[in-house]
Order: sequence, then structure tokens, then C-alpha cells
Amino acid sequence: MFIRNLWYVAAWEHEISADGLFSRTIIDIPIVFYRDDAGRVVALEDRCCHRHAPLSRGRKEGSCVRCGYHGLKFDASGRCVEIPGTPGIPRVARVRAFPTVVHHRWVVVWMGETSPDHSSLPDNFSCDHPDWKYLPGYLRYDTPYPLIVDNLLDFSHLSYVHAQTLGGSEEIARIHPKVDPIEGGVRVERTVPSVPMPNYYAPLWEYSGLIDRWISYEFRLPATLLMASGARPAGAAASADGEGVLFHSCQALTPETPNSTHYFFMEAHRADSGDASTTAGLFDGLLAAFEEDRKMITAQAGNVSSATPMVALPMDKALVLFRRITEERLRAEQPTTTRVDPV
Amino acid sequence: MFIRNLWYVAAWEHEISADGLFSRTIIDIPIVFYRDDAGRVVALEDRCCHRHAPLSRGRKEGSCVRCGYHGLKFDASGRCVEIPGTPGIPRVARVRAFPTVVHHRWVVVWMGETSPDHSSLPDNFSCDHPDWKYLPGYLRYDTPYPLIVDNLLDFSHLSYVHAQTLGGSEEIARIHPKVDPIEGGVRVERTVPSVPMPNYYAPLWEYSGLIDRWISYEFRLPATLLMASGARPAGAAASADGEGVLFHSCQALTPETPNSTHYFFMEAHRADSGDASTTAGLFDGLLAAFEEDRKMITAQAGNVSSATPMVALPMDKALVLFRRITEERLRAEQPTTTRVDPV
Amino acid sequence: MFIRNLWYVAAWEHEISADGLFSRTIIDIPIVFYRDDAGRVVALEDRCCHRHAPLSRGRKEGSCVRCGYHGLKFDASGRCVEIPGTPGIPRVARVRAFPTVVHHRWVVVWMGETSPDHSSLPDNFSCDHPDWKYLPGYLRYDTPYPLIVDNLLDFSHLSYVHAQTLGGSEEIARIHPKVDPIEGGVRVERTVPSVPMPNYYAPLWEYSGLIDRWISYEFRLPATLLMASGARPAGAAASADGEGVLFHSCQALTPETPNSTHYFFMEAHRADSGDASTTAGLFDGLLAAFEEDRKMITAQAGNVSSATPMVALPMDKALVLFRRITEERLRAEQPTTTRVDPV
Repeated sequence: MFIRNLWYVAAWEHEISADGLFSRTIIDIPIVFYRDDAGRVVALEDRCCHRHAPLSRGRKEGSCVRCGYHGLKFDASGRCVEIPGTPGIPRVARVRAFPTVVHHRWVVVWMGETSPDHSSLPDNFSCDHPDWKYLPGYLRYDTPYPLIVDNLLDFSHLSYVHAQTLGGSEEIARIHPKVDPIEGGVRVERTVPSVPMPNYYAPLWEYSGLIDRWISYEFRLPATLLMASGARPAGAAASADGEGVLFHSCQALTPETPNSTHYFFMEAHRADSGDASTTAGLFDGLLAAFEEDRKMITAQAGNVSSATPMVALPMDKALVLFRRITEERLRAEQPTTTRVDPV
Repeated sequence: MFIRNLWYVAAWEHEISADGLFSRTIIDIPIVFYRDDAGRVVALEDRCCHRHAPLSRGRKEGSCVRCGYHGLKFDASGRCVEIPGTPGIPRVARVRAFPTVVHHRWVVVWMGETSPDHSSLPDNFSCDHPDWKYLPGYLRYDTPYPLIVDNLLDFSHLSYVHAQTLGGSEEIARIHPKVDPIEGGVRVERTVPSVPMPNYYAPLWEYSGLIDRWISYEFRLPATLLMASGARPAGAAASADGEGVLFHSCQALTPETPNSTHYFFMEAHRADSGDASTTAGLFDGLLAAFEEDRKMITAQAGNVSSATPMVALPMDKALVLFRRITEERLRAEQPTTTRVDPV
Repeated sequence: MFIRNLWYVAAWEHEISADGLFSRTIIDIPIVFYRDDAGRVVALEDRCCHRHAPLSRGRKEGSCVRCGYHGLKFDASGRCVEIPGTPGIPRVARVRAFPTVVHHRWVVVWMGETSPDHSSLPDNFSCDHPDWKYLPGYLRYDTPYPLIVDNLLDFSHLSYVHAQTLGGSEEIARIHPKVDPIEGGVRVERTVPSVPMPNYYAPLWEYSGLIDRWISYEFRLPATLLMASGARPAGAAASADGEGVLFHSCQALTPETPNSTHYFFMEAHRADSGDASTTAGLFDGLLAAFEEDRKMITAQAGNVSSATPMVALPMDKALVLFRRITEERLRAEQPTTTRVDPV
């Protein structure tokens, strides 16, 4: 069961070409994506209303898609506009269409029955901004999405999972972050003082002393991470502009099915530092680290036992808060049942 | 749940050798096939009555089969005739035997508890007739058989699934066939006038004009297609013998399990036209086309959702009729329950 | 559902190295094994009490193990002794520890809640005795363990499954063994008179006449086979020491999950006969034979049908007896339910 009235990241913009059909399942609903004659992204349920063949096995015809099994043709609103050999078209002959927006290179899709709420689009500005450079990433997990959300809400795992990749020194786990609720999510802030510089900063900052390393992010429904992070010389004032290093990262988890998850991610560096090899190097490092997460979380998912309670710890503050926010939204979407107490 | 009192095609005759054991599951019952000393095909439940080991992992001994686990020996009637080290043989020590007929090169097996009804054997004459030439085909589907039945009962899919292989021009989908109920099945007839000739006719008919293409088949329980098809010069009278091309096709779907299906098929051309390479070429084309079906139907099977009703269309007439015939036969085989209404 | 208050063989001693973590699931409980600073084998539930990550993906730190996800550290008793960044440690922060014994090179683990019963350790003396030589074997089955138990309790299968490997002449099946109940198990004895010598005896005994072949074993809970076997010249007195051949075999089945099984095995020959190549040759032959069993039992497991009763035969005496002993022990471990009859 998933929250429906939300924007879900469905693809990177470049994944949906000008002339093809692209298929991806979002919160357990198969969707075919394509571009209409004006280049706008169309999202239709990927299941012909006739015999349920996937429309993505058919062909795009202008702004329409034609089923590859018996030839029914649907327009961008999901209405059937042609049934070969059949003059009248039943009114029920249609597939569901989903509102989409291409938002800073993310294709987002509104999965709810209500009107889409454009004010809740994610602020992934750095995905499409001249000041920032990055390579786009995608991973697929054979794991339910909540365990991956947990991972992103407790960075103490950097000290153990990413000791070799993301500069995960043990000091990170020792400092508990500041966690605050925000509308539809949580804000997490952590500064780790006087630690050695991670290797991957080197191409961006010629510096060899100890650093104060800081991370500040919002994590919002459904499961979007928007994070600024960086470092300055140990002891330098937080407000000091000048020497240091700065990153911006946008990451989104989108449930594919109850047991699998899409993961869209990028971490950008400032466009005025580093070159193409810096961007590629940061991406490769990020991918290696995220594979470390995937291995750990996949092993965890196979090991979770309902027979054994999990012991809640202070480091779980953000994830407990976010699970509560998720459950409240899920409950709010359920049909209201009037309970009549016996008199 | 399957209809039991029917002949099911279990194998091509050549699949069951003179001296080996052959195993195939038919309507969810594992069966071991072999030939007795007279060459007759024996079909026994492939499950030793002792500890359920598959008899097909044992060995043939004359007209008997011996289990390869603890050595019980069964005769062609399924009766246990030897238990090593044990003098008396319990009367319950037996496995079920199934009546079989080798019928025009199809090995058919009667899966019911009633006496086999020889009048209902399929009329697959062209599988064993000097006027016809073909190569025998077999495919296995990881798909429930009803979705494959649907496919064979609506040839409008030729226009979309087989546009490149079986000459599936869009005209086929535009012409609705004549559909008539027959005893235990349906008859489907369709003529598509004035269309270009499919490529695969070329080795059989030197002709380059437009054709009238016709298809006429019966589809009978459990799931047997017997089809004549061909073409004549556009506008020529149907009764005119003479110029044209003629095929006869025999195809049978046999459920293996609720989720998988055996598919036996052939399409024969007249023995007096074409040569061995023609026969091989037709077979290769047929196989390529049936792989197109398999891909589409497998994708469809994974996509069918009980949450979304299918929209019935005029082109579904034959398949709706055949599903009704199947359900009636299934219901007729159920034990009658006397319902006693409360007074 | 498994009997819990028993020693289960979990590993060969050499599988658990001095400095690594070793993971194996025993009766559906994942366990991490390692050696403490004194070299003793520690067995902890392989599931961190925090977020259920497998501890075996973490690292050994002296006599402790540290979780590789968020860094919790557990001592050999399962108590959490460190939570990074968190001063107080909740009393519930612990994982279950299991008593272990390294017993004649088998690592055995006590899976019950009661105190371990050392008197019930298996008598696998030949695994660690200067008079005997062998190579240690391990196989994993994707099969429930009771079907493999059945196999070991009815050696009449040697005549059919192992006709080519273990000298399984048909005489073995013709002689029924003597079967007697013992505490927590059964004793099985069989002598097959005047049979040809199996090939694999040749390196150990220069002899070419007929032999009397004898097998004598105990099979005890949970599923341990301890067997002496051998042969003497046909007609020689049983008590005669002197000419002949002698083996001792220790085998243990340990359920991994309800549908999979660990199989530890060895068959030793006398150290004063044969050389290293004899030992290796016997092992290779044993492995080939056990693969024959695995193929047959795996096929059987996939073929067992609850719809068809199995026909019990005299040769099933030992396995019927052992199934009854197993069920009695299972029942004895169930919580007693007081049934209150309606008045």
C-alpha cells in the first residue's frame, strides 16, 4: 500500500526518447511513457483495456500509442480512438492517464486521483543549473523501499558501510545529528569537527589539514533527499565564505512494487571547480558506495524477522519520525469508516 | 482445474522411442510414457505408489517399468508385479494407467475416469497423409493455457503481432470472421479480399497479383485447432479449383500445469508443390511467428490484473463462446451437490 | 517446525577459521560463527538486534563481533557492549547466543532453550581417531530433511540408485535388515551373504572370492548416522578377526530451512591399510554416490503428492519407527494446552 497523492520520480528526462515507448512500474502500476508531437511526456497505464497486453509492446503513432496485440489505439488522454474493424468505440475503452511534469530533468508523475499539487514538486534545482555539474545515476533494488529510506535517514552507517568510499570515519557515527520535523518530512543536520579530509575531496580542494565536515538535508515524501554538504578548514566559522568544498545532492526512491525500488540519484559539485574527469570520478565513487548500501540493505531485507523486535536507538530519531509521517499520510488517504459504537 | 474426460495430445509419436522412458506432465499429472514389447504406447502416472519417486528415473524392463529408487516393478496396466525382498504384493500397490492412442502421429491420452470416447479424437488427418508435407513443432509456454487459446481464436492479432512474418496486413483485423458454434467447439471463417501476397507463399505459387486470402478452422475441446487456409487470385470464385495455394494446419494446446502449457503444431503444404527446402522454410517461418506470439502472450500473462475489468469487443466473439463451452464442460464434471434448503 | 533441544551439527571444525566470520542457517535460524581470543567457537544469532542486518557482514574484533551497518558491538555472550555515539546501552540490546562444542571435528550447536545435554552428543569418534582415515564431506540439499532421512533408513535403495557406485547388487534389497528401537533412534543391521565384492574394496583388500557383506548402524535424533560396515570371505564366522575389510561412517543431516538441508558426511577406512590415494578414491566414490541420492531425492521431493497416499511396505520399518520418534519429541516440546470440555 502506497501513498497515492504525491509526485513520484519516474525517470531521468533523457530516458524517454522522442520516438520510443518506455515502460516502468511505479507504486505497482505499470506505466508506458512517451512523448507527444509537442515533445511533452505522456504517461498511460501500460495495460490495454481490451486484453491487458502491455501497450509498451506496441508502437507510438504521433501523439498516440497503438497496442501491438489487436491494434487498439489510444490518445494522450488515454481515450481509445480506434478499434480495427469496429466502428463504434465503447466509452469504457480507455486507459488511465497520469499527469507528468519534467522538473529539472526529473520526469515526475502524479499517482493520485486528486488534482496534482504543483507546490509539492521537489526542489531538485541542482539537477538543472549552470552552477552545478554531475552525472545522473539510477539503481534498482530488489528490496522494499522503507529499508532504503531508513538508510538515508541515518548517516551513522557511513562509518561502517562506507569506510573505504565516502570517507566514513568513525567520528560520523559518534556525532548525533540535529533532527527537526518539517512539512511532509524531516530536516537533518550534522557537523563533524576536526576530521581528516575524504580522498574524494582532493580533486576539488587543495588542502591537507583537518576539516569540519557538514551535512544538511531535507527528506520529504514520498522519499526525496535534497542535501547540501561540504567542509571547511577545522575551526573556521560556518558563515565564512571562501576556502572549502561544497556539494549538492538530489536523490529519490520510488517504489516499483512492494518488494522493489527505483533509486534516482546525483551528487553535484560546483561548476567552477574540477573538470569532466572530476565529475566522472565523483560519480564512480558514488556508485561504488551505493553498491555497498545495496549489498547491505539487500542482506538486511532478507534477514528481517517479524519474530524478533527491533531495538530502537537514539540514532533512529529521523527514521522513526519519517515513518510516522508516512503512516499518517497513508491513513489520511484511506476511505473513512464510520464506527458505530454499540449503545 | 481442468476438464478430465477428454483426449489430450501428449507427444509427437517420434518423441516416445522404442526403448526409453519419456516423462511429461499433462493437466498437472506427471506421466511416464514408454512402448511395450508390441510397440504400443503405455502411459502410467509417473509417481511410484511406494515413496512417490518418478518412475521415469527408473528403467524399462520389457513391457514393465521398474522404479529406480527401491525397485518396485509395474506392468503396463499399472499393477505392481514385484517388490524386491517382499513376497506378497498389496492390492493397493499400483499406479494409475491412462488409455492412449497414436492418432495420425499424435500420441493422445485419455485423462478421464470414464471410458475413452474414440469418436472425439481430433481429425488431424494431415499429420499422416501422403498428400501433405510438414515438419512437427513443439513449444512450451510458461503461461496458463486459456490466454493462448484466446490468441488462436482471434486472428486479428496477425495484423499486429505477425506483420513481418505471417503476412499480417492490417486488412485482416478489419474483416471480422464468421463465428459459429459446433459440437464442443467453434468454427471460424474469414476471407480477406484483394490483399498483397505474403512472402511465404512465394515458393508454392508463382503469382504476383492481389489475392483473396481465406482461413477456415474448427477449434475444439480441449484446445485443438484444425485449419484449412489458402488464397486464390483476387476475385476468383471460391469454388474454382485451379490456381492458388492451400495449407492445412493442426495445432493442440495441452495444459501442463495451471501456469504452463504444451503446444504441438504443424502447418502442411500440398505434397505436389515445393520441395524439402520449402517444407523447412515454412516451418522456420511458423516457428518465428509462434515465438512472436509467445513473447506477447507471456508479457500479457504477467500484466493481467484482476483489479481492472477487460473491455469485451466484437472481435472476442469466438473466444467468449469457447470459454463458455469450456466452463460448461467443467461444471458438468463437478460432483453434484444436493442443496437442502432450511425449512 | 523442528525439535529444538538437541545438538545439531553446524560445520566441520576447519570451516570456522581463526579470524573470520562464518554464517550458516540452522533450523531456520541464521547463525554467525567465529572463534574468540581463546579459539573457542562462538555462535550468535546472525541478526543485529538494532535493524536486523546480518552480523556476518560486519567484522570480528577480538572475542566480539561488530555489526557492519551501524557499528553495534556484541561480546561472545551476545550482549551489546558498544553503540557508537550512544552512552547508555539498553538491556534488551543483545542477540541470542548458542552453546557450541567442537566434538571430534564436528562443530555442534545446541538449539534449545534448556541446558545443553552433553550426554546426547553423537559418538562420531572416527572423525578424530588415529586408527581411521577419511576426507570430510559436505553437500547442501534443496529438499526437506525428512526425505533424506528416509533414504538413510532404507538401504535397499543401494540396489537401484547405487548399482554402479557403492556395489549395490540386487541382493541387498532382497535381504531385509533387523531393525530395533534404541533410545532416541533405531539400530539397523543387515548381512548380505555370498555376493561379489564391490570395486571400491579393491585397494583395501586383495581378495577375489564371494563375500558376506554386513552393515550395522545407529540412526539418532536429530538425524545422525553412525555406521560400521565391512565384509569377510563368504561363510567365515562373524566373530573371526583377520581377513576382510572394515569401514566406519559418520553422517549428519541438519535442517537449514523447512525446504533445505545441510549434509555432513565421511566414511573412514582403517589407517593401517591403503594410502592417501585410497582415502581420496573412497571420498570421490562416496561423493558420486551421494550425488545419485541427491538427484533421486530432489526428483522425489518435487513429485510427492498429498493427493495420493504412499503405500507402506515392510522395507519401510526403520523409517516409520524413526518418524514416530521424531514426532513424539516434537510433541513433547509443544506448550501444553489445557482442554476444557464443555459441561
